[in-house]
Amino acid sequence: MAKAVDAAKLPDKLRVRPGARIVLREPAARATHGWRKADAERALERNRHELGALQYRMYAGGHHALLVVLQAMDTAGKDSTIRHVMTAFNPQGCTVHAFKAPNDLERQYDYLWRAHRCVPPRGSIAVFNRSHYEDVLVVRVSQLAPRAVWQRRYRHINEFERLLADCDTRVVKIFLHVSKAEQKRRLEERLEDPKKHWKWDAADLDKRRQWRDYMQAYQAVLTRCSTAHAPWYAVPADRKWFRNFAVSQILLNELRALAPKLPKVELDPDSYRIF
Amino acid sequence: MAKAVDAAKLPDKLRVRPGARIVLREPAARATHGWRKADAERALERNRHELGALQYRMYAGGHHALLVVLQAMDTAGKDSTIRHVMTAFNPQGCTVHAFKAPNDLERQYDYLWRAHRCVPPRGSIAVFNRSHYEDVLVVRVSQLAPRAVWQRRYRHINEFERLLADCDTRVVKIFLHVSKAEQKRRLEERLEDPKKHWKWDAADLDKRRQWRDYMQAYQAVLTRCSTAHAPWYAVPADRKWFRNFAVSQILLNELRALAPKLPKVELDPDSYRIF
Repeated sequence: MAKAVDAAKLPDKLRVRPGARIVLREPAARATHGWRKADAERALERNRHELGALQYRMYAGGHHALLVVLQAMDTAGKDSTIRHVMTAFNPQGCTVHAFKAPNDLERQYDYLWRAHRCVPPRGSIAVFNRSHYEDVLVVRVSQLAPRAVWQRRYRHINEFERLLADCDTRVVKIFLHVSKAEQKRRLEERLEDPKKHWKWDAADLDKRRQWRDYMQAYQAVLTRCSTAHAPWYAVPADRKWFRNFAVSQILLNELRALAPKLPKVELDPDSYRIF
Repeated sequence: MAKAVDAAKLPDKLRVRPGARIVLREPAARATHGWRKADAERALERNRHELGALQYRMYAGGHHALLVVLQAMDTAGKDSTIRHVMTAFNPQGCTVHAFKAPNDLERQYDYLWRAHRCVPPRGSIAVFNRSHYEDVLVVRVSQLAPRAVWQRRYRHINEFERLLADCDTRVVKIFLHVSKAEQKRRLEERLEDPKKHWKWDAADLDKRRQWRDYMQAYQAVLTRCSTAHAPWYAVPADRKWFRNFAVSQILLNELRALAPKLPKVELDPDSYRIF
């Protein structure tokens, strides 16, 4: 087995270079960059501790915000990633927003309206479990809008994220890349295990039938919307342990780069006596 | 007196051409484009009727939305214009949002967050009494943010308005151009008339002192942010009767261009008998 990529350098390997033309290949979904399960699990634990500490400072500092966008095909593990990684964060200061098909109210507005309402305030983290990217994914694949309509959305989205970035919100976008073969295994598991029946949705099979179209739509997203101000990361997700570790490492590097600091306070402890 | 410009052609004279370099001169604030007071007042009444009828169809159709942005120096008549012109609209379907200095909650987000929350839903009209443009006006003049921060906002704003325009919201921006001399008269009137004392705000004098800086800031706004998808109109506001008529005519032309239609309904009246 190849030597493991240094943990701190892993995010750089997974980040999509702005302008790079991305092709999603099945084998890439199984990559582990030389990591073994036991090491990755230990690293995840360490990362979770540091993530918690960084969030604490970010919350106290109240300057930066972090928006994490999670996108993936079904069974890739969006919910599972949130459970295993985002639990490192104090929920006071971290909110998860799940974006489903827009409701009656939301459909009265431009498609970014509901996303903008949910961006994190200063000091906080917001996780989008699915996001405004559905408006160039399911909308494109299922032809819910004409081509001319969704084509211009890449620009809207890039400019929306530029606004956020310019206003102290770091935008980090993570695509969990699962292979079609691995999805088959996971869907079969859901059918076999009664405790997983609640997750079963026959509509997932429709999307599985459109696999190639979805890969094309994701390729367009990664190619057109990974920017310096709001990068996309493509995370191999066939191995859950690698996926969790990789996501934790991405968030860790991103939060470290924000370098959140406790606010400077002019306080002379000697001037107070607690009665 | 020159022959009056045809009412329907007046908005075209007041619209700021995209890319045109705008200089605000005092005499322009008194322009009436050949109109006389009595004619303008009659035209306003006619326009108000048609505005109401167009809004009714827009509301029933539920397709388009209209966002009217009103900006001006103090005493130019933002409130008065709303009272004289926007009362043509049924308040069920027209909401006025007054943007003051951002509050504690709003300051936790990017400066467009609160504006985006208030954009009109399909079928409706929203009037912004002051707006996101304050973030390149008072913020610039009073140096509430560094130059590098407000400089990039022109792009944010243009792209935000492009999003709205692409999503069926017409954005119409109106600058009420009052001269410094006329402002003096109106401020003196406020001091003399006890019934107007509630409008008095000594802070208005600070802004009056910064008149040239404000004109520069407005010139930058008109020059950089009048686009095909979201035009600025500069309306002479020294004569209230002309200001009201001109604004009504701008809104009228804009709503006519949207050509709102009642929804097509398949209804055979003979198939029902009312019991």
